[in-house]
Amino acid sequence: MYLRNCWYIAGLPGEVTNEPVGKIFLGEPVVLFRTSDGTVAALEDRCCHRHLPLSLGKVSNGHLQCGYHGLEFDASGACVSVPGQSRVPPGAAVRRYPVVEMYDWLWIWMGDPDAADQGLIPDVFWRDDPVWVATGEYWAVACAYDLLIDIQLDNTHAPFVHPDTLGSSAITDTAPRVERTDRTVSAGRWMMDVVPSPTFARAIGTEENVDRWLLWEFTPPSLCAFDIGCAMAGSGAETGDRSQGVTLHTAHFVTPETETSCHYFWSVGRNYNVDDIAVTGAMHAEFKSIFSEDVEIVEAQQKSLDNTSVWRPIDVNADAPVLQARQLLKKFISAETDA
Amino acid sequence: MYLRNCWYIAGLPGEVTNEPVGKIFLGEPVVLFRTSDGTVAALEDRCCHRHLPLSLGKVSNGHLQCGYHGLEFDASGACVSVPGQSRVPPGAAVRRYPVVEMYDWLWIWMGDPDAADQGLIPDVFWRDDPVWVATGEYWAVACAYDLLIDIQLDNTHAPFVHPDTLGSSAITDTAPRVERTDRTVSAGRWMMDVVPSPTFARAIGTEENVDRWLLWEFTPPSLCAFDIGCAMAGSGAETGDRSQGVTLHTAHFVTPETETSCHYFWSVGRNYNVDDIAVTGAMHAEFKSIFSEDVEIVEAQQKSLDNTSVWRPIDVNADAPVLQARQLLKKFISAETDA
Amino acid sequence: MYLRNCWYIAGLPGEVTNEPVGKIFLGEPVVLFRTSDGTVAALEDRCCHRHLPLSLGKVSNGHLQCGYHGLEFDASGACVSVPGQSRVPPGAAVRRYPVVEMYDWLWIWMGDPDAADQGLIPDVFWRDDPVWVATGEYWAVACAYDLLIDIQLDNTHAPFVHPDTLGSSAITDTAPRVERTDRTVSAGRWMMDVVPSPTFARAIGTEENVDRWLLWEFTPPSLCAFDIGCAMAGSGAETGDRSQGVTLHTAHFVTPETETSCHYFWSVGRNYNVDDIAVTGAMHAEFKSIFSEDVEIVEAQQKSLDNTSVWRPIDVNADAPVLQARQLLKKFISAETDA
Repeated sequence: MYLRNCWYIAGLPGEVTNEPVGKIFLGEPVVLFRTSDGTVAALEDRCCHRHLPLSLGKVSNGHLQCGYHGLEFDASGACVSVPGQSRVPPGAAVRRYPVVEMYDWLWIWMGDPDAADQGLIPDVFWRDDPVWVATGEYWAVACAYDLLIDIQLDNTHAPFVHPDTLGSSAITDTAPRVERTDRTVSAGRWMMDVVPSPTFARAIGTEENVDRWLLWEFTPPSLCAFDIGCAMAGSGAETGDRSQGVTLHTAHFVTPETETSCHYFWSVGRNYNVDDIAVTGAMHAEFKSIFSEDVEIVEAQQKSLDNTSVWRPIDVNADAPVLQARQLLKKFISAETDA
Repeated sequence: MYLRNCWYIAGLPGEVTNEPVGKIFLGEPVVLFRTSDGTVAALEDRCCHRHLPLSLGKVSNGHLQCGYHGLEFDASGACVSVPGQSRVPPGAAVRRYPVVEMYDWLWIWMGDPDAADQGLIPDVFWRDDPVWVATGEYWAVACAYDLLIDIQLDNTHAPFVHPDTLGSSAITDTAPRVERTDRTVSAGRWMMDVVPSPTFARAIGTEENVDRWLLWEFTPPSLCAFDIGCAMAGSGAETGDRSQGVTLHTAHFVTPETETSCHYFWSVGRNYNVDDIAVTGAMHAEFKSIFSEDVEIVEAQQKSLDNTSVWRPIDVNADAPVLQARQLLKKFISAETDA
Repeated sequence: MYLRNCWYIAGLPGEVTNEPVGKIFLGEPVVLFRTSDGTVAALEDRCCHRHLPLSLGKVSNGHLQCGYHGLEFDASGACVSVPGQSRVPPGAAVRRYPVVEMYDWLWIWMGDPDAADQGLIPDVFWRDDPVWVATGEYWAVACAYDLLIDIQLDNTHAPFVHPDTLGSSAITDTAPRVERTDRTVSAGRWMMDVVPSPTFARAIGTEENVDRWLLWEFTPPSLCAFDIGCAMAGSGAETGDRSQGVTLHTAHFVTPETETSCHYFWSVGRNYNVDDIAVTGAMHAEFKSIFSEDVEIVEAQQKSLDNTSVWRPIDVNADAPVLQARQLLKKFISAETDA
């Protein structure tokens, strides 16, 4: 059971050019294409006539034309032309999915199109704000999407999964306080007046003490956003003034593909040394390495679950944020199902 | 549910030599081998003793000998020898399937052996008639056999699936009249006193106007036969005198392998320039290219259907012949099932 | 349904070093590792917390540490440490399987650990007795384990499966008398005062007549042990005095992996020419060739069964030992299930 009335990332804008592109989201075949005015549309990737994937067809005059018998569909999913006959048969249509191009990603709404509210797209302003520099990748991952969420929200895996990078950090020693709102689960740690990490010392340009923070927020169904940084000690970052500091954002969006596979979009952005390509490259490489260690774990976990008839996990204290997040997601899904 | 009391093509005569050959037809394992007199026999490809495929055994004195314990079976499927004992246990037998070698193909009857009637083998005389020259191929195709039938009977896919060859032809502009008999669905178009296509102009050796025809006939479960040609305008071809014309036959036989795969045998024959190897080669290459475009479509269609819980296709006008053919096949299968 | 309260071979001692090793036995994931004192322990290969395979973790201070969140398990399967908290949650444990290292194999007890009785390990003394020399291999085989048992107990397949080696032997001409005890099915043939086979003539160092034997014993669920040899004619081998003879043992242990795959451990040992490496190499090569012919058959048989809805085999006379063995195994399993 997936949450449907929400935005998922469908891909990168550059993926959809003149040719239609077929993908699977939430177990459903979806075709993405650009209409005459260049906007991206998404339809059910299955012709209503003989069920050929429409992604095997082509875009013709802004319509999506099936590659089998040439039926044409507009961006609303309505069949607007059937070769060889003047009238379109009643009911000839495919499902449409609202799409928005924003923050250098394509966002798709898999639920009721009329409920699609662009205002619900999570705020990842740093993806295309010129005072920030962002990077990231797309990975196809062979696990249920929620396993990939879990590993983001649980910091205690770091010493075991990332022993050579994050794992050595003392940051995992204390449990964060988890906060829950109607729409999010979040947690954070502030370490006041401490020595900066080598990376941040270089970033902020000082060896003096700093106030450090590590904050994260989960927005169901599948966005985990991290806010990491430091500022000169006592400069007021904790109360909102980050002018004397540097910030690094990471975002993990996971779009379910099937029940045991997902689309993983991760991104990292920073607001310091933004013109230094070497810093960007190093940052990308470091996070890529860390996130790929996560992927190795969750794919192995999925294989283990495939071979498990009943999942009866024992929980530990550190699972609190994961359990809160799962509970909130479950609540969202129940609300949608009951409605 | 397959039609069983009918002939399917099992393969090419040259495939079955000294060694038994195992295949799957209608979901059932079948072994083909040659008996002492050189005729081809077909049995269940599963020893009645420990179920090893008999195709892993060998032919010994015209009997098929299992490769595990040496049980021997004759062409009727009866076990005639069990090593180490003088008596064959009661019930030791495997199913037999009548086979006929005709028109340079092997035909197999998957139903009641006693009902096998060689007279029901479709007439494809041009496959081995010396005034004709025929060519063709066998392809394993990853789709339900009926999808491959559908695409033969539906001419309106040509502009979209075969844009560079058939698709440009004006021949698809008018709907054919579909005719149905007790045993066939057929349709055809006659275009009287028209310019010949370049290919046929060369074939008939004139640039003058001709009467052209495109006729096809579907015989359940899975034979689609085409009759294409032209004759000098007004020479009486439409009423039966083709002496002033040239004819090209194509045949598409599809034998179900499993519910989502089939054996596709196609053939093309002509009665003009029969000694010109270059024409044969060009004809083969052209049709091979066209038919492989069909296969690309139906295999993609199958994948789409695999991911579709309920198939509720919308029909269009051009589906008339396909729907007639499906209906006739369904009637045949129902009759067999009720009997 | 598997027999559980019995010993299966889990692998070779050399396989389990510093790193944990994951395998599947009887459909269950099992991890093997060495504790601080070097003994091998076996646990469920699935952390009780988030179900990552423990074989992806590492051994730390003799405990098995999960590679995800660092939970540690001792050899009894009890979770003894959860990072970040002082108390281990109730119920945090994984299943344990008793393991014994003996005869240069690792033996695992897949049933009730308290019922594990080392005395029930089959006697294959010749595997590590210095007056014997033994060799063998491990193979992953793609068939249900009982198919691989069947082929051992049935000598009549030799002329068909092993035509170039065993098959030519006259030894298969006479049916053995099958004997059954509470715990075994066995059979044997004694051929008194006959010419020795070339191999045994060389082994015993004479061309004179010998008394030959071929004895085998099946111990459920999956051990087939052969005892083959000859002694000077009339020297009393049949009544127990083998001092004037030579003996060759082969053992076939099969551990179920899944319902259609198994772990096959075979071994061959002899008490003659024990220092002659060339004889060992030739013996190994010969049996390897023979046993791989068996594997080819049973894997093909499995594929055939996969495509068979109901297995209704016809039995022949030579199946007597196989049927006795299957019956005894069934009795063992029923007894265990009823208990």
